[in-house]
Amino acid sequence: MLLGMPAAPRIPPPGELELLDQIRGRGGSRNFPGLRLGIGDDCALLRLRPREELAVTTDLSIAGRHFRLDWHPPEAVGHRTLARGLSDLAAMGARPLAAFVSLGLPKELAGQRTGRGRLPIASAEQRKSWLTRFYDGLLALAEAEGCPLAGGDLAESPLAVADIVLTGAVERGRALLRSGARPGDLLYVTGALGGAASGHARLGALAAGSAARSRKGPLRIPDRLLPSLAPHLAPQPRVAVGRSLARHRWATAAIDVSDGLSTDLHHICQESGVFAEVDAPALPVAPGATLHQALDGGEDYELLFTARPVLRMPRRIAGVPITCIGRIVRRRAGRPVLVLRDGERAVPLAPRGWQHFV
Amino acid sequence: MLLGMPAAPRIPPPGELELLDQIRGRGGSRNFPGLRLGIGDDCALLRLRPREELAVTTDLSIAGRHFRLDWHPPEAVGHRTLARGLSDLAAMGARPLAAFVSLGLPKELAGQRTGRGRLPIASAEQRKSWLTRFYDGLLALAEAEGCPLAGGDLAESPLAVADIVLTGAVERGRALLRSGARPGDLLYVTGALGGAASGHARLGALAAGSAARSRKGPLRIPDRLLPSLAPHLAPQPRVAVGRSLARHRWATAAIDVSDGLSTDLHHICQESGVFAEVDAPALPVAPGATLHQALDGGEDYELLFTARPVLRMPRRIAGVPITCIGRIVRRRAGRPVLVLRDGERAVPLAPRGWQHFV
Repeated sequence: MLLGMPAAPRIPPPGELELLDQIRGRGGSRNFPGLRLGIGDDCALLRLRPREELAVTTDLSIAGRHFRLDWHPPEAVGHRTLARGLSDLAAMGARPLAAFVSLGLPKELAGQRTGRGRLPIASAEQRKSWLTRFYDGLLALAEAEGCPLAGGDLAESPLAVADIVLTGAVERGRALLRSGARPGDLLYVTGALGGAASGHARLGALAAGSAARSRKGPLRIPDRLLPSLAPHLAPQPRVAVGRSLARHRWATAAIDVSDGLSTDLHHICQESGVFAEVDAPALPVAPGATLHQALDGGEDYELLFTARPVLRMPRRIAGVPITCIGRIVRRRAGRPVLVLRDGERAVPLAPRGWQHFV
Repeated sequence: MLLGMPAAPRIPPPGELELLDQIRGRGGSRNFPGLRLGIGDDCALLRLRPREELAVTTDLSIAGRHFRLDWHPPEAVGHRTLARGLSDLAAMGARPLAAFVSLGLPKELAGQRTGRGRLPIASAEQRKSWLTRFYDGLLALAEAEGCPLAGGDLAESPLAVADIVLTGAVERGRALLRSGARPGDLLYVTGALGGAASGHARLGALAAGSAARSRKGPLRIPDRLLPSLAPHLAPQPRVAVGRSLARHRWATAAIDVSDGLSTDLHHICQESGVFAEVDAPALPVAPGATLHQALDGGEDYELLFTARPVLRMPRRIAGVPITCIGRIVRRRAGRPVLVLRDGERAVPLAPRGWQHFV
């Protein structure tokens, strides 16, 4: 009301308790037999079936590092946040029990959007807050994977951060570990590699073009680009594949490709005390991706796993193509941990995937 | 080597993998029968005993909101981070199974400190990074509570953030809920209230004095002040009390005092569908704290619980004093949810504890 200006239509920002109530209403504690108590108490309560053990993973996503508020639609941030956690469960062969999200957000992202100046925003979709759209994306994937949102935390923060916690269940002794690979085992990967990195590069080019045309506001992504960006914006964690591998005892070791094939294969080799060879021509490079993006790109959330060579691996598991891309070999002093082979040529493959603090 | 200056002693900052290895070495997956697989795979693996269910809680701590890098020693930040999570387990009556920490840190807080200019820092203590000292504080409390650190995440972030995840186990049907309070139940609290808020105020005054004397660098806290600051810097979660209450079925409802008595009691009333009366003279106000700090201060991490009036409540549980501070009453239209009584006087008690986004 300063200087007698007419007030802009202002919806008071909801407080934490009101926001928690909204999320609670959407989290859904119904129809999940493993979830005895969801959002609303000091802890959630979960039950395992007899002979199951619990798998737990946490992954921190930070604005400007793991996502960009000016590039990524909030639904994509929500989807990718949950996908990271589900993918860790997939890599253990666990079935999802419940997810928890700790969210730190600037105040303006938590409240409902209003029109600038005197014009109220027209559509209900546009009025949705960033927080609501984040949960839209997260809960759509949670629903698809049959994983309830059972709790979390919500705090005001100058920087948008989201920590995802996934709990899962796996039959005792059946979890897929990184440490089980043995010399002679064959190396497999699900789906295609490099799609997330190439999609990310394409999104960056779009953002640069948009900036050059000096378009203000969040990046608008044309519908025709969505299919090629999907591996980046909406990666599909391989939960069903992981569960099959564990149930049938097909895999000797497994990891998800989150940091990049070169880095994640390095983890398997370190934990198993072995070396590995990758056949470059065999790699299922995603359409539009480069070999470099397939090797080092990360965030594909495919499963990388090993199996005994006598096993006849299905060509598809749960509808997802499975490709043999190399083999596990004995550790030898003076040799590189990873080797990339292309016919007669063999070059050392350094772990060049993502690492923080370097 | 610019301009031929002698190089300052520089220790290259450790990368994420090296830092994770350091933490892994300290996390300790030994001697915890419930922990089958700790740090180092895609997930940790935990086991429950027969007839137990799982309690899970997450709490986000953000620099500038929940702690201050210029006020709080890193050990205190680590302690308080874990204490928040343990206190949620205590409020459910659960025994701690394992903790997980997702930590986002600016690069300079993750690396070892070096001397400014050409003088290397003398003592090993001073050379420790913020990250190492954070884990010192967190792991000391974890050790004391018999709770292993089983995993988490580590990411570079312009803002220091720590999300703590606690998993615990409680016998089926014995968990203490917020929803079990009934009219006639008596209201109890452990320990003393307001100590954290008054300690926080004292720390603020110390920081203001230090700033007035224009002392640079992190706040130095004189040893003589440490006892009075302990409720703020090193709160003791009431895990053993919570477990006793659950085991003996002494409590009908429970919550931990994290947001402030007025707000947390309001939660119990909302979830139980009841109202409550607090007797002001009965409140165990911490030495040096005001009534306002005891009612609204928060972060005391005491337990607030209700019990049937016929129960003879012990004066101490696990060595912690237990005080009766009021009673649960029937809900009545037009009456306030909470009333503060002092003899004949009775005033409405509004939930004025901490809430984000308001």
